[in-house]
Amino acid sequence: MKRVNIGICGLGTVGSGTFNVLTRNQETISRRAGRDIQITHIGARRDNPASHTAGYNVSRDVFDVVRDPEVQIVVELIGGTSVAKDLVLEAIANGKHVVTANKALIALHGNEIFQAAEAKGVTVAFEAAVAGGIPVIKALREGLVANEVNWLAGIINGTGNFILTEMREKGRAFLDVLAEAQELGYAEADPTFDVEGIDAAHKLTILASIAYGVPLQFESVYTEGITQITQDDVQYAEELGYRIKHLGIAKRGQDGVEMRVHPTLVPEQRLLANVNGVLNAILVHGDAVGPTMYYGPGAGAEATASSVIADIVDVAREVDLAHPVPHLGYHRGAEGLKVLPMAEVVTSYYLRLQVTDEVGVMARIANILSDNEINIEAIIQKEPQPSDDTVPLILLTQRVQEQKMNKAITELEGQTSVIGKVTRIRVEQLDG
Amino acid sequence: MKRVNIGICGLGTVGSGTFNVLTRNQETISRRAGRDIQITHIGARRDNPASHTAGYNVSRDVFDVVRDPEVQIVVELIGGTSVAKDLVLEAIANGKHVVTANKALIALHGNEIFQAAEAKGVTVAFEAAVAGGIPVIKALREGLVANEVNWLAGIINGTGNFILTEMREKGRAFLDVLAEAQELGYAEADPTFDVEGIDAAHKLTILASIAYGVPLQFESVYTEGITQITQDDVQYAEELGYRIKHLGIAKRGQDGVEMRVHPTLVPEQRLLANVNGVLNAILVHGDAVGPTMYYGPGAGAEATASSVIADIVDVAREVDLAHPVPHLGYHRGAEGLKVLPMAEVVTSYYLRLQVTDEVGVMARIANILSDNEINIEAIIQKEPQPSDDTVPLILLTQRVQEQKMNKAITELEGQTSVIGKVTRIRVEQLDG
Repeated sequence: MKRVNIGICGLGTVGSGTFNVLTRNQETISRRAGRDIQITHIGARRDNPASHTAGYNVSRDVFDVVRDPEVQIVVELIGGTSVAKDLVLEAIANGKHVVTANKALIALHGNEIFQAAEAKGVTVAFEAAVAGGIPVIKALREGLVANEVNWLAGIINGTGNFILTEMREKGRAFLDVLAEAQELGYAEADPTFDVEGIDAAHKLTILASIAYGVPLQFESVYTEGITQITQDDVQYAEELGYRIKHLGIAKRGQDGVEMRVHPTLVPEQRLLANVNGVLNAILVHGDAVGPTMYYGPGAGAEATASSVIADIVDVAREVDLAHPVPHLGYHRGAEGLKVLPMAEVVTSYYLRLQVTDEVGVMARIANILSDNEINIEAIIQKEPQPSDDTVPLILLTQRVQEQKMNKAITELEGQTSVIGKVTRIRVEQLDG
Repeated sequence: MKRVNIGICGLGTVGSGTFNVLTRNQETISRRAGRDIQITHIGARRDNPASHTAGYNVSRDVFDVVRDPEVQIVVELIGGTSVAKDLVLEAIANGKHVVTANKALIALHGNEIFQAAEAKGVTVAFEAAVAGGIPVIKALREGLVANEVNWLAGIINGTGNFILTEMREKGRAFLDVLAEAQELGYAEADPTFDVEGIDAAHKLTILASIAYGVPLQFESVYTEGITQITQDDVQYAEELGYRIKHLGIAKRGQDGVEMRVHPTLVPEQRLLANVNGVLNAILVHGDAVGPTMYYGPGAGAEATASSVIADIVDVAREVDLAHPVPHLGYHRGAEGLKVLPMAEVVTSYYLRLQVTDEVGVMARIANILSDNEINIEAIIQKEPQPSDDTVPLILLTQRVQEQKMNKAITELEGQTSVIGKVTRIRVEQLDG
């Protein structure tokens, strides 16, 4: 398998996340990429205890990485816009592809950087710059390529969404939640970029350019923060059937493109209004597809690394062009991996039984479940209807293997006190 | 700009949608693709009044299209698995790339088709085969390439989700809603594929193979439909804090991969539980990224066409390999497109004013708004607090241009009966 050499610049949160995911999932990533993706050179001012870089070529000067003739793809994760810009431009000048998670760099200097890259025939990839782990750049640029984008609206700053969520769910005040967000590490010591909408405006700048083909123009984004939102506003909005979300909106009208970041009342039944906490979501409305939404973590070491590595794999395909995406995503499949028979699946269950309304029925049912190692989580028992001597009994169980449940259901249906078939519906928490 | 010749086989719902979007958005698609994508040949048993194919080369035999030496990409939209399979295999044998929306074809014969394509060095693309317009194949195969997929769970049959939504929201019976779905054209005359989960199992087969690198194996999917779900179950689930969704689930455990389609209780606060009507959504949990979700229309002429065309553009890049995705998605940008100043943006508004509690105040406020052509949508007026002679007044307005609102707010703040600043938050319906 052809080797592709990666140079990582910056070993902070995202840098160490990228290092860790690349090394942990090395085998799966290589099977999908059809490439042996190797970290060849790391530039970091200091060691990061979260990354075990022993045995790696580590330079204290990040510019050593972009000057290393072995490195084919430079991953810029140092942040900021001054050194990062010099670094990226030098990498391009040296004929290297670049992957970056730096939203400010792209929003402010992207036009210049892309021009340099196109002149040199290299690629600058930046999926991680918008909405962390959500592959929304790819969706917008490739997945929705057929569409005129009518509008897009995104929750693209997790800190702001966390604050607004806490204000609504717990009735807390803005400054109180902000202090907690800072303690939890969601917000920087200087929270201006988050709460004044600057971070969201960087991301919206990028999304709008991709949606409409206009140059990056951060300075044209109308930007309003959430610092003036009061608990009263949150409650009145609720009374009116709305929730307040801090949105980045890009919209194509008759006369031009709108780009704006501001607190927004959104009808509470919209899915976007129900995106809570630090999570991000971008709703894109295309003329052909209609509404589509992309949801997930907008920040975090490994979530952001997920997008950085997706870019690395995309760019690695360009290092040797005759190498499209494999049909099912893997160059080498996992043919040996077995599919579990349903009997071996473990899940929890909703059961509905119609039972005779007499003493001891519940005990017999509980015994059958208990004998099959099935624990009950919740019970609903309804009053019998007049002139009816049977009642519905609803059970929610804890997790158990399907074959045990099959056996228990057979036994339950054998009871004279259980009328007809037992209704069984599986339950999934889907919480991680 | 280099031309790429497309042959479309089948001019039914999706075929005519693809024809219409390709011709309507021709200019934008070409600017993004860097290719002049032209329909060269259409194969259709009969004319479709929804597509104006006058002037196009139309054959009554679809095999004429795959034998046309001009055609570079064959778009298979005839459906079914017998003729479609022969057609796709012959296109591959003739060295043509293939784009298809045919989930049954891929789920049942994909292994054979991909093998033939790889042997011949062509690509078979099938984004539209899963979840219509949602670019979930691309997200899973490329966007999440760094991740071990812990599990995925999807609402991947719109008809089933429509039925379950109506049962919950309106208390209707299964058969009643099914009849309506058939009338609305959501469900086929024979609804078995939808309500028995076969359609969802086709799609889950494809998603699971991409997530885990296992061969396509439709026959291994546990499949249970929604025909046995009663109104009682829907209501008991609600009492327990759950909603019933028909999910396709793929999960990686210690011992193998689970693939199952069945009705499932999902906690009501999950975003997936709030995906209603005919819409689809796929929640994917990766080890690096955490939970991400992809939402949108799972069917429909133009939504499906959106994915078909995305595939055409992806494949068109392979026709001449030295042609990556442009940085901001456009080869030729829209530099002339102006960004609208905020003053010209039209939206609706939430206003909060603190006003003196006296006769005539409301009339003066209403007059100021009316003079600025601002219509009131809703009002909340609170009782004054004891020992306070001012009250909060909350207004929701209809849509108006920002500069009119700016002027009205200035005038309102000039009123002696209005205390302090007016709080203004913009309102967006985000409904299309």
